[in-house]
Amino acid sequence: MKNKSVFIGVIGGGEVTPPVARLAEEVGREIARRGAALVCGGLGGVMEAACKGASEEGGLTIGILPGESRRAANPYVQIPIVTGIGYARNVAVVKSSQAVIAIDGSYGTLAEIGHALQSGIPVIGLGTWSISMDEKADNKIITAKDPPEAVEKAFSLIENQE
Amino acid sequence: MKNKSVFIGVIGGGEVTPPVARLAEEVGREIARRGAALVCGGLGGVMEAACKGASEEGGLTIGILPGESRRAANPYVQIPIVTGIGYARNVAVVKSSQAVIAIDGSYGTLAEIGHALQSGIPVIGLGTWSISMDEKADNKIITAKDPPEAVEKAFSLIENQE
Amino acid sequence: MKNKSVFIGVIGGGEVTPPVARLAEEVGREIARRGAALVCGGLGGVMEAACKGASEEGGLTIGILPGESRRAANPYVQIPIVTGIGYARNVAVVKSSQAVIAIDGSYGTLAEIGHALQSGIPVIGLGTWSISMDEKADNKIITAKDPPEAVEKAFSLIENQE
Amino acid sequence: MKNKSVFIGVIGGGEVTPPVARLAEEVGREIARRGAALVCGGLGGVMEAACKGASEEGGLTIGILPGESRRAANPYVQIPIVTGIGYARNVAVVKSSQAVIAIDGSYGTLAEIGHALQSGIPVIGLGTWSISMDEKADNKIITAKDPPEAVEKAFSLIENQE
Repeated sequence: MKNKSVFIGVIGGGEVTPPVARLAEEVGREIARRGAALVCGGLGGVMEAACKGASEEGGLTIGILPGESRRAANPYVQIPIVTGIGYARNVAVVKSSQAVIAIDGSYGTLAEIGHALQSGIPVIGLGTWSISMDEKADNKIITAKDPPEAVEKAFSLIENQE
Repeated sequence: MKNKSVFIGVIGGGEVTPPVARLAEEVGREIARRGAALVCGGLGGVMEAACKGASEEGGLTIGILPGESRRAANPYVQIPIVTGIGYARNVAVVKSSQAVIAIDGSYGTLAEIGHALQSGIPVIGLGTWSISMDEKADNKIITAKDPPEAVEKAFSLIENQE
Repeated sequence: MKNKSVFIGVIGGGEVTPPVARLAEEVGREIARRGAALVCGGLGGVMEAACKGASEEGGLTIGILPGESRRAANPYVQIPIVTGIGYARNVAVVKSSQAVIAIDGSYGTLAEIGHALQSGIPVIGLGTWSISMDEKADNKIITAKDPPEAVEKAFSLIENQE
Repeated sequence: MKNKSVFIGVIGGGEVTPPVARLAEEVGREIARRGAALVCGGLGGVMEAACKGASEEGGLTIGILPGESRRAANPYVQIPIVTGIGYARNVAVVKSSQAVIAIDGSYGTLAEIGHALQSGIPVIGLGTWSISMDEKADNKIITAKDPPEAVEKAFSLIENQE
């Protein structure tokens, strides 16, 4: 493994419908095909589907877990990080990523989107939250129409950062 | 001080315009008048204005700081909690509150709103973020037209929890 | 409450023998008598006994909790801080204190002693861990023979810091 | 990379003498030779020397960083985890390891030893802290005479856990 890997985060809910799971799996697959490592919260739902997709393409998967045990990781996590800090691990998930792809998701995903935008980490959305606040702040979530476009946008935003 | 105090959080940006500061100060004043303790992130902007208002009415102010030193607290914080955990302290700010009033705010406030809703803590908004995600999730932020209404709603939501 | 309060931490195990509980209670009482606020981890054992002592003398007690709910606080905690970050809250307990009194204790207490010494916060020990590492590092834990001496040393070390 | 990797933590000070650096490098080399992944705090000193040793043998190195940027990682970290939670990341370093080897070290290392023992994670010491508390608690740090013995003990303790 090279030192200069690209790390892309995938965030979304711990419970998913089959269409959302397919979307997440395809995002994971695409990240792996392009040689990036996948960072996520390590649990089920969107996280598990994305790790499954990445694993099938031989990619590296990192799961930053909230609890006290590596056993909580989904079976496709290769590198479990056991934080023991609960939801505060969401901050570590986004900060360990150079760009984040948000898929569907609930309030935890909204918190992660907030932390990412606060840290200047680009967020690409696939059917996720829409946020707004009068004239001051635009919806900074960059929308994508499908998984390949989401991953493509993540890569080009990371390149522009450097 | 009684054991059964009510704890109300005030969240919002570290930099504010004068009208937003007046709003936050009035929220702080109202919280103190009604005998609740004010919880916030302990820094400037909305946090400082709210603490100033609460202090003027003889209320108790708690500032949960991100950094390594109590010196970063605004001058109206009476109880500085020094976490050293950076933005992850946002989770502690909302979890230590029984209801949260969000005033204006930037992405950090959005993250706090996400954490609060994820934890089932009611969020009352005064000119803050608007969030939505298709049919599945409503904008769960309860809007208020002015500081007294925001504090009134916070109290009635806390009573209903118990 | 004045802005310039002194904050003294009390650390120790969540389970105690009656003699250790009496020691902790007396430490809490002495802290309150001298007008300082007591900071602790908010749970049982040494933490509860110290909060009980401080409360009996009309002192202020702050409990920085590891879990997700204020209900876990012992009944003598007046200000529960709900962090949700598990054992990592130990860092916040010591950093929120200007000096720390360690009573008895297990490995969690040892971790807190390490965090305190790392942050330059004085540690006074009452029957607690003894630590050493060859010639390089002395046992920096300041021993006290009884609760009044422990609290007296805490106050004089805090004054010297300023 | 297989899902069932062994993760061994190396903890120690951020500044080291040349003999301590050689010790840490040899520990890293031995961990990699035996096919385990190395977990550490990602910075300099013992952490950097251990990552250097592991890298030279083609091993995988994970650095769980305290700050806000992956740039703080030493050049031999392949997987930087950016936590942003400061010293509280020490908890994640030990919890992400199945056994921990403590080399030399200062107070941060002492805190990590406390967190590891509190979590039931075996600690093997090479010239590190000695801890004791009367009859109740033994020095639970298992001493090793050299790097190969330290790594050998780590592996056999991990096998016994399973």
